[in-house]
Amino acid sequence: MDPRVREHADVLVDWSARIEAGDDVVVSVGEGAHDLGVAVAAKLGEVGANTVTTYASEEMGRAYLRAHDGDFGESPAHELALYENADSVLFLGGSRNTTATADVPAETRQAAARSSEAVREARMATDWVSTLHPTRAHAQQAGMAFEEYQEFVYDAVLRDWESLADEMQELKEALDDGSEVRLVKESDDTDLTMSVENRTAVNSAASVAYDSHNLPSGEVFTAPEDTEGEVFFDVPMTIQSTRVQGVRLVFEDGEVVDHAAETGEDALTEVLDTDAGARRLGELGVGMNRGVDRFTDNILFDEKMGGTVHLAVGRAYDACLPEGEEGNRSATHVDLITDMTEEGTRMEVDGDVIQRNGLFRWEDGFEA
Amino acid sequence: MDPRVREHADVLVDWSARIEAGDDVVVSVGEGAHDLGVAVAAKLGEVGANTVTTYASEEMGRAYLRAHDGDFGESPAHELALYENADSVLFLGGSRNTTATADVPAETRQAAARSSEAVREARMATDWVSTLHPTRAHAQQAGMAFEEYQEFVYDAVLRDWESLADEMQELKEALDDGSEVRLVKESDDTDLTMSVENRTAVNSAASVAYDSHNLPSGEVFTAPEDTEGEVFFDVPMTIQSTRVQGVRLVFEDGEVVDHAAETGEDALTEVLDTDAGARRLGELGVGMNRGVDRFTDNILFDEKMGGTVHLAVGRAYDACLPEGEEGNRSATHVDLITDMTEEGTRMEVDGDVIQRNGLFRWEDGFEA
Repeated sequence: MDPRVREHADVLVDWSARIEAGDDVVVSVGEGAHDLGVAVAAKLGEVGANTVTTYASEEMGRAYLRAHDGDFGESPAHELALYENADSVLFLGGSRNTTATADVPAETRQAAARSSEAVREARMATDWVSTLHPTRAHAQQAGMAFEEYQEFVYDAVLRDWESLADEMQELKEALDDGSEVRLVKESDDTDLTMSVENRTAVNSAASVAYDSHNLPSGEVFTAPEDTEGEVFFDVPMTIQSTRVQGVRLVFEDGEVVDHAAETGEDALTEVLDTDAGARRLGELGVGMNRGVDRFTDNILFDEKMGGTVHLAVGRAYDACLPEGEEGNRSATHVDLITDMTEEGTRMEVDGDVIQRNGLFRWEDGFEA
Repeated sequence: MDPRVREHADVLVDWSARIEAGDDVVVSVGEGAHDLGVAVAAKLGEVGANTVTTYASEEMGRAYLRAHDGDFGESPAHELALYENADSVLFLGGSRNTTATADVPAETRQAAARSSEAVREARMATDWVSTLHPTRAHAQQAGMAFEEYQEFVYDAVLRDWESLADEMQELKEALDDGSEVRLVKESDDTDLTMSVENRTAVNSAASVAYDSHNLPSGEVFTAPEDTEGEVFFDVPMTIQSTRVQGVRLVFEDGEVVDHAAETGEDALTEVLDTDAGARRLGELGVGMNRGVDRFTDNILFDEKMGGTVHLAVGRAYDACLPEGEEGNRSATHVDLITDMTEEGTRMEVDGDVIQRNGLFRWEDGFEA
């Protein structure tokens, strides 16, 4: 076995999920994630955790959903009981075909998602972590050779997370102490301000100990409000199976009042029309993982790339909100990414430049 | 997809497990059973059952067990909760390597089995069914070509179960009404008598509706006692990874007092030494599946072959015992098979010949 697969399992179990002897763990294995599953099983045996292994087969999911009449009922008791009694859930993603469920009708998918709300909540109440085993299908989606993609994934995953967490702490503190964030990109007329008053930024260091549930992670995010101005997103992405590129949003009083996209505008409009909350920002995220050095059409990696900023329309994360405050509510949460490395680009907190042309003020080469 | 895979799924869900809308089903998928998993998922979607899919990976199991220190503790709460809340469990076997766990120490395996006793009991309390998807690894174990093995498996599985159940009912009634069964094979000096007084034979028609949990099945079995005489088992089999062939057992007062094997005698001795119950019979089973036409070193098929009889030393099945009676208790249950098709072979119930030279009295060609 590729030694990086074992290292991946070690980081996942030790750093990310913090699993200990006697913990009741669910390991969800994607169709193409068998090898990572074997490495994780060995690691969990070594730690002395208890495991139930589920098979997250997209082809089985597709077959089930297409054959079903769409009347799904409540969350099933056995599935709910499994997750309500679990301490951790490890999602080992890894597709053999990233479009394996392409022909499942959207209504069926949505009805199934609604009916499994209680199961999803039970899962999210555990120390869950989501990661990805590199497969040929994901390499293909990224437009990369398989070996090249493996190197890309392990560069992003096998980092010195402790030291990255320390660096991210600086940005978290700046955001926590600040009141207003401003993003400026001269090249595309971006000039956006938003309030982060009373909000708590999350140092997303790929560990449940940091309220962070993705491996890789490497972002600091918060829940902005009162957004004003204009922003352009130059990074292409896939929204509900549609390629969307060159998105421009105009905000007034915290709400999107104008929008456009060079490609896929209908998909964007559909997202914004989901509900009232879908026209407000739920997240400001700042990518800080320097191991992610290119866009691969996979949000798990793209939004973590050092030198990018993403804004999500829709739902805000509770971890960013003061106790008892609701924040922006919505059924959707869609991330849009902009590249901050171009000349004439900066991020300010209360007027202080904290990042310029993609470099943070604590990095070599930063121009104050 | 091979249409026989879909037929297999139909038989499993409809005939064997009797699954209905709203049932909470666990589908356990072996590493090589993906295609059957997809067909079963489609069928369960059509029926409107709720599914949790587990991944019965032998390689993950091996990795976990080899890394573990062997101190397994109690059955984990999440796994127990899953099965305690399930209506049915479908085990879709299918290995990619039938010796995938060969290097797991026996003590570790036994310790893990002991610790998961409560989980096993919870599973067995559901309407569970075990079946096999034909893989190249199983073909290899059978010494067959892959296509040849697929035909073998589907011949055994895709039967007219209703009509076979009717035929088996005749034997069940003969055994239920009778007091003593005698097996005679002139060719190898077999002459064995056993009591079936007060015992209930199970018409194992591959359906939970018949207390039968294997697909394929096709046997009638009961729990004999007071065995006397000598019996020779000419069908080779694998006991605890050891090839065992040509077993002779001598019974007095229901107990094995002498034993020998042409091959693998040590493995046989080890079984008989497990505990006191391991020297007494727990099962008399009569194979009636004419779709199984050869031995493939897989007990799921071998013991069902029409024209064979098997006897198991060890644990008896509760279904065969009168209410409140314990029957033979043991930690083991090992089946040994003898071919009843040779000249000079017969099975009698209370002196009436019910099978001669492999043919039942209701079959064409039977010589009274």
